[in-house]
Amino acid sequence: MPRVSDAHRAARRELVLEAARRTFSENGFHATSMDDVIRASGLSAGAVYQYFRSKDELIAAAAAEALGALRHTLDTLDDESSQDPATTLVTVLKSWPLTPGPDGLDITRLALHGWSEATRNPELHALVHDGLDGFRERVAQLLARWQANGTVSADIDAVSITPPLMSLLLGYVVQRALFGADVDPAAYARGLVQLLGLPHEPSPTEHS
Amino acid sequence: MPRVSDAHRAARRELVLEAARRTFSENGFHATSMDDVIRASGLSAGAVYQYFRSKDELIAAAAAEALGALRHTLDTLDDESSQDPATTLVTVLKSWPLTPGPDGLDITRLALHGWSEATRNPELHALVHDGLDGFRERVAQLLARWQANGTVSADIDAVSITPPLMSLLLGYVVQRALFGADVDPAAYARGLVQLLGLPHEPSPTEHS
Repeated sequence: MPRVSDAHRAARRELVLEAARRTFSENGFHATSMDDVIRASGLSAGAVYQYFRSKDELIAAAAAEALGALRHTLDTLDDESSQDPATTLVTVLKSWPLTPGPDGLDITRLALHGWSEATRNPELHALVHDGLDGFRERVAQLLARWQANGTVSADIDAVSITPPLMSLLLGYVVQRALFGADVDPAAYARGLVQLLGLPHEPSPTEHS
Repeated sequence: MPRVSDAHRAARRELVLEAARRTFSENGFHATSMDDVIRASGLSAGAVYQYFRSKDELIAAAAAEALGALRHTLDTLDDESSQDPATTLVTVLKSWPLTPGPDGLDITRLALHGWSEATRNPELHALVHDGLDGFRERVAQLLARWQANGTVSADIDAVSITPPLMSLLLGYVVQRALFGADVDPAAYARGLVQLLGLPHEPSPTEHS
């Protein structure tokens, strides 16, 4: 067998994972078999099993990657884009791949399948739990900043307000996955700004 | 065969549906077979198939019932419990069966399975779509009331604000299904009230 470079191995692993994400997003975890992923990847069965020994490993890798992408978005917010709750939520919404890409991947559908599966798969549940714990910690840091800069009242209890703040993103994912283009990200962002009643309101063209 | 009264038939149908809800909530739709539901119901296979000819019929019936219960809650809000957005959201949260009952039914888990399945099952998608459309219409009526009584500014665009308002309930369902008792309904209600920044704030004991 010819030797395969590390870069080539990493690229092939990513090819398999991309095929898995797309197939899972379309058909859910249960109706997708390893054979479906192998076919979608265009690689041989032997090559695919070199990187992922089971569907469960693929599910875990897809979930880890999606949670990592959200974490990265939250970690790399700059001062301006996280100056208050509404601006931060709008920035995160804009950074997400919200419409299915040319590869057919709809990350909001993948999230719905992942949450459903996490209620009965302990390994996936642990991954999602850790991911959302990190999300909660990050929101707590941001709240401390907003209270320091006066965009959020110092009377607000950060622990109580975090779950409803998270809902504004989670509920968006639910509605977008179920209703697609009927849930327009720019309109949702305007509604968020109005709901939170904060002074910063993006101009109508800013997110069109 | 002995004749069975209509009331007896309705009670047996409900028995099957209850067994299906509980089994679906625990294991999801894909890992649940008709045999699992038959076993959980305690009835014979022949009796069960008299009421539901397939698992898809059971899934549709379970979804229709859950959406009907939410609709009923929204339709029967009285003037006091729907006087402003925060009070209304807190009333709806309190009316839901939030912890698994003695029958083991966790309706938030059932919702997650239903949304995931609805992205790939056209019949279920139509049901969920109609259900959430009714939800949206009801929110629009409430918003008109809130703008008339001054609890919501007349400048607010009702169409834009409805999806984020719905997220505050949908995101609660996601967090409750995934984290169970870590997401306390009373704390969530307090967070909601703070987030919406409205004057009505329940006393600390009101929802404990």
